[in-house]
Amino acid sequence: MTIPLLNQAIIADIQAKIDKKTKPLGALGSLEPLALQLALITEQRANRTGDNEPLAAIELKYPQMIVFAGDHGINEENVSIAPSEVTQQMVMNFLAGGAAINCFCQVNQIPLTVVDNGILLPVSKQAIDELKLTNTSPVFVEHRQGSGTQNFAQEPAMSKAQLTQSFVDTEQLINHKIQQGMDILLIGEMGIANTSSAAAIMTTLTQYQVKDCIGRGTGISDEQFEKKTQLVTQGVNRVSKQKINMLNEFQEGSAEQVKNILAELGGFEIVAMASAILTAAKAQLPILIDGFIVSVAALAAVKIDKKVADYLIFSHVSQENAHRLLLKQLLSAQTIPQSKNTALLDLGLRLGEGTGAALALPLLQAAACFYNNMASFESAGVTV
Amino acid sequence: MTIPLLNQAIIADIQAKIDKKTKPLGALGSLEPLALQLALITEQRANRTGDNEPLAAIELKYPQMIVFAGDHGINEENVSIAPSEVTQQMVMNFLAGGAAINCFCQVNQIPLTVVDNGILLPVSKQAIDELKLTNTSPVFVEHRQGSGTQNFAQEPAMSKAQLTQSFVDTEQLINHKIQQGMDILLIGEMGIANTSSAAAIMTTLTQYQVKDCIGRGTGISDEQFEKKTQLVTQGVNRVSKQKINMLNEFQEGSAEQVKNILAELGGFEIVAMASAILTAAKAQLPILIDGFIVSVAALAAVKIDKKVADYLIFSHVSQENAHRLLLKQLLSAQTIPQSKNTALLDLGLRLGEGTGAALALPLLQAAACFYNNMASFESAGVTV
Repeated sequence: MTIPLLNQAIIADIQAKIDKKTKPLGALGSLEPLALQLALITEQRANRTGDNEPLAAIELKYPQMIVFAGDHGINEENVSIAPSEVTQQMVMNFLAGGAAINCFCQVNQIPLTVVDNGILLPVSKQAIDELKLTNTSPVFVEHRQGSGTQNFAQEPAMSKAQLTQSFVDTEQLINHKIQQGMDILLIGEMGIANTSSAAAIMTTLTQYQVKDCIGRGTGISDEQFEKKTQLVTQGVNRVSKQKINMLNEFQEGSAEQVKNILAELGGFEIVAMASAILTAAKAQLPILIDGFIVSVAALAAVKIDKKVADYLIFSHVSQENAHRLLLKQLLSAQTIPQSKNTALLDLGLRLGEGTGAALALPLLQAAACFYNNMASFESAGVTV
Repeated sequence: MTIPLLNQAIIADIQAKIDKKTKPLGALGSLEPLALQLALITEQRANRTGDNEPLAAIELKYPQMIVFAGDHGINEENVSIAPSEVTQQMVMNFLAGGAAINCFCQVNQIPLTVVDNGILLPVSKQAIDELKLTNTSPVFVEHRQGSGTQNFAQEPAMSKAQLTQSFVDTEQLINHKIQQGMDILLIGEMGIANTSSAAAIMTTLTQYQVKDCIGRGTGISDEQFEKKTQLVTQGVNRVSKQKINMLNEFQEGSAEQVKNILAELGGFEIVAMASAILTAAKAQLPILIDGFIVSVAALAAVKIDKKVADYLIFSHVSQENAHRLLLKQLLSAQTIPQSKNTALLDLGLRLGEGTGAALALPLLQAAACFYNNMASFESAGVTV
């Protein structure tokens, strides 16, 4: 099954519907192209066949936040503020309901699933039992491909078999959620040191240099920053023959090429997110992307199949400087009309976990609601 | 009753609570100073007396959106894209549930009240009856001070008696909502041509010139823009002896001075919003400000009593360029710590109605939820 290209022929109909709403043209700013994008995806799913069919309502009733977690061998060299054990502790915090992502999912009524894609140590059955999870608690899924990746500065982060298994497992998970009714996928991540992998992948898949793609993550020292730069450069150089430039044109790699790079540079959660994005786009679902790491997974997915791009909605631009550059590139791969070259929110977040995506969902629901329900000048008897 | 100054002495306690949450320091960006501000207001209301009392939870369970509507005599000179009749048509659209503000209030579960502060023609009883409003419909309140203001370019927009009555009526309305349990006030407006009044008031209450304070509103032509500039300048010159500069220091005027300027320049809905803001601040409620017009009402309130400023939360920065300048000034009047000199959202909205405030409410609820419920490193067993 391939990813359908959005039907550009109905853009004019959708835009006309938006322009008849009781408001000055364009007065809802970024929410208007957002509604257009959601409507286009909706029509694609509804399999609209002729010009005479009425436009469908945008449905965003069953959002799902999936947080993918994994550990990173490179952290043996202290590139993060925290030891890798913290990934597991935060996974437990997610399951216990104590993290920021729990709060934001609760406020915006988003069910949460947490996936262990290969954190350092598995969560024990006893620890899970002690949480006494109910059917409103976060769902926990184990898709472990290992106990953290290998140090990608020295050797491949994972084997091709691990990558393939992660793609298969994640595809099944996403398809299961779709069967349960999911109509929009929100993606988040947790993995101490995963900005290192993300920076290496971005460098390898774009025209940017390591210095453009690397940042302070959650707040490392100058010394750690220098070390991180050196290790990421080492990893990038290791796989530099495979570098796929984007340059000005958005250039696809072959799926094999991109997957090889992901296996080389890791991590397990980034691989799983790329698979999740490809699977959701195949099913013609809108996908709400969180911060820098998730955007790097989106970049990999777009390099595998450029048609993914139009299904992506970018929730926020993080403090990580590379994220701004990356968003511009990802938005340039979209064929749909846009209002501005950035994400919906700019709140200076630098936490990950899916927090930006969870915060942005109400904006999507507002866009859907005005598109579906707002009166036209004619129906409201307004004489502008 | 006066507006209490927020108790700066407990900032450290609140910040310490935020800093113990399971996230890197500052990783929630603008939501952290937002939580701090909401917590400070909450402590003020809770009348915390000693250092030993535990910090209270932030409650944002009963939001109220109040949209104030009025017409403007100056529109006899065609300064807007629409005739003044459209104000009434949009009020009817609000009551019928067909406008953008209805959609955004619905999505974010915000009860809506619409106030007629003096639109051109009153809404007829028959028209209201035909709407068959239920107890989940918007609430309609009539506080008419006239059939639109006078043309402020030529003469005072309203009498001092009209202004005083509007202050009294609005104070009663806000206090009634507080008695009903309102714990955060969201403010919106509707009034064809009200950017003209707003620009004139901003010019008079700040160091800015007419050209800095004037914009295209909802999208007027070059010719209309020139006419608007000329009329606003004429109005400002009429009252220029009363100009209250803010310059570098935020300088208060006397309440009388500011009220005189409001009566001179209008409109009825701007006067009512200034009263609503003062009343809500007296009751120590957080106040979520919408776009440019509401911000000008906030400016007037702050000029009457600078202590209002710390109760204001700025939901979005609109396309109207003057709004950016005004937000910087209003934020400079706050005594609380801030993360950046702008509003929460920057979506290119230029609609008014309270739409930006309705869209921003979930961010406030997210800030409250993380402050109230997120685990600390200690409680979650996270070892960073």
